[in-house]
Amino acid sequence: MTGKLIGVGLGPGAPDLMTLRAARLIGGAKVIAYPALKGGDSFARQIAADVITAGTREIAIEIPMTEAREPAQAAYDKGAADIAAELDAGHDVVVLCEGDPFFYGSFMYLYARLTPRYGAEVVPGVTSITACAARAGRPLVARNERLTVLPGPLPEAELAARIEAAESLAIMKVGRHLPKIRRVIDALGLTGKASYIERATLANEVVLPLAEAPESAPYFSMILITKGSDPWL
Amino acid sequence: MTGKLIGVGLGPGAPDLMTLRAARLIGGAKVIAYPALKGGDSFARQIAADVITAGTREIAIEIPMTEAREPAQAAYDKGAADIAAELDAGHDVVVLCEGDPFFYGSFMYLYARLTPRYGAEVVPGVTSITACAARAGRPLVARNERLTVLPGPLPEAELAARIEAAESLAIMKVGRHLPKIRRVIDALGLTGKASYIERATLANEVVLPLAEAPESAPYFSMILITKGSDPWL
Repeated sequence: MTGKLIGVGLGPGAPDLMTLRAARLIGGAKVIAYPALKGGDSFARQIAADVITAGTREIAIEIPMTEAREPAQAAYDKGAADIAAELDAGHDVVVLCEGDPFFYGSFMYLYARLTPRYGAEVVPGVTSITACAARAGRPLVARNERLTVLPGPLPEAELAARIEAAESLAIMKVGRHLPKIRRVIDALGLTGKASYIERATLANEVVLPLAEAPESAPYFSMILITKGSDPWL
Repeated sequence: MTGKLIGVGLGPGAPDLMTLRAARLIGGAKVIAYPALKGGDSFARQIAADVITAGTREIAIEIPMTEAREPAQAAYDKGAADIAAELDAGHDVVVLCEGDPFFYGSFMYLYARLTPRYGAEVVPGVTSITACAARAGRPLVARNERLTVLPGPLPEAELAARIEAAESLAIMKVGRHLPKIRRVIDALGLTGKASYIERATLANEVVLPLAEAPESAPYFSMILITKGSDPWL
């Protein structure tokens, strides 16, 4: 009997925004795995720290932060091999995932490598989108509104076209793309309808109108735009 | 001192997919409120049942299921007035919300009526989108992919244009719109890339390729389409 791969969403960052199921699975795990920076710092492990029990075996998958894909792919190959060794020994492995495993999550790279050879279970988590909307006090979509989620790294012309065509919008992974994204939103006359949020639900969270956002943004930052005229009224 | 309005997301349906914070707030609440059908059945209350403590005062907001908006608006007016009476008496009121309060949630109608007169806090929850992706074993978006969320009631021509322009897609509130949506997806040659999910994470959950979906769908059903060629590989 091989073990099962379990990808567990941890939510946006505040530890108590993890689900009851996530807490139970992590607390009961013999083996956990998580992405980490070179040197071992891991945002995922930090979110889950309070529910990890003593004696749990930990696999830290160190992901190099490079533009080139190959070094990261090699790191996922190694991580998948380490996890496979545990699964082959009959141990379930709980993979800690920031946010939700299937929503821009690095878990997908492990999932692709390990299924269908091994059985997998995915536990959804609170995404940064609804966390940012909650913290900004901005309803995201109501009634028959459409929602578009765009990654900030998209080319400027594509961003402009997609933002113009959208109704309610979340722009993810803002980071170093902030100046480009601001330019696009400004040109469309939408700055007054945009909120900037970084590190939602964490102690160092920032929530501001986009016009007052800082010059540089961390990777975990987002811009929300709602064009509608309060359809929830 | 007036009380605080607290909108709490409960997640997609399985009780243990509620967050630790939601469970703590509901368990400690003196007053809770929730949407209910005529007669009192409430999906939100059902999800939260295990964490509601004895002696908690309950405000059931009966929402008539009509096409016309006015009867529902009147019900929210009355619900907001009942909640306001508790807030005025200095009691916090925890409003139970299926999924996430700001993601197609009826909480927005109460929020619009009660803020900024009263302070509000919103606790995000797991949305049906990532819950459906998890249950269908389908990564939703990776890397620089875009996600589009469309409500099924949109007119056929608009649905067709939006689905064609999208990359990764979730179509919500399928229900009685299923035949129309299938027609559109079929005409675009996307049926083979579509999954049908109803009542995700509940005991009577259904997950099928769209081609094998039943003829009629409940309100809590969704179609997921991913056009990309596994960008997470």
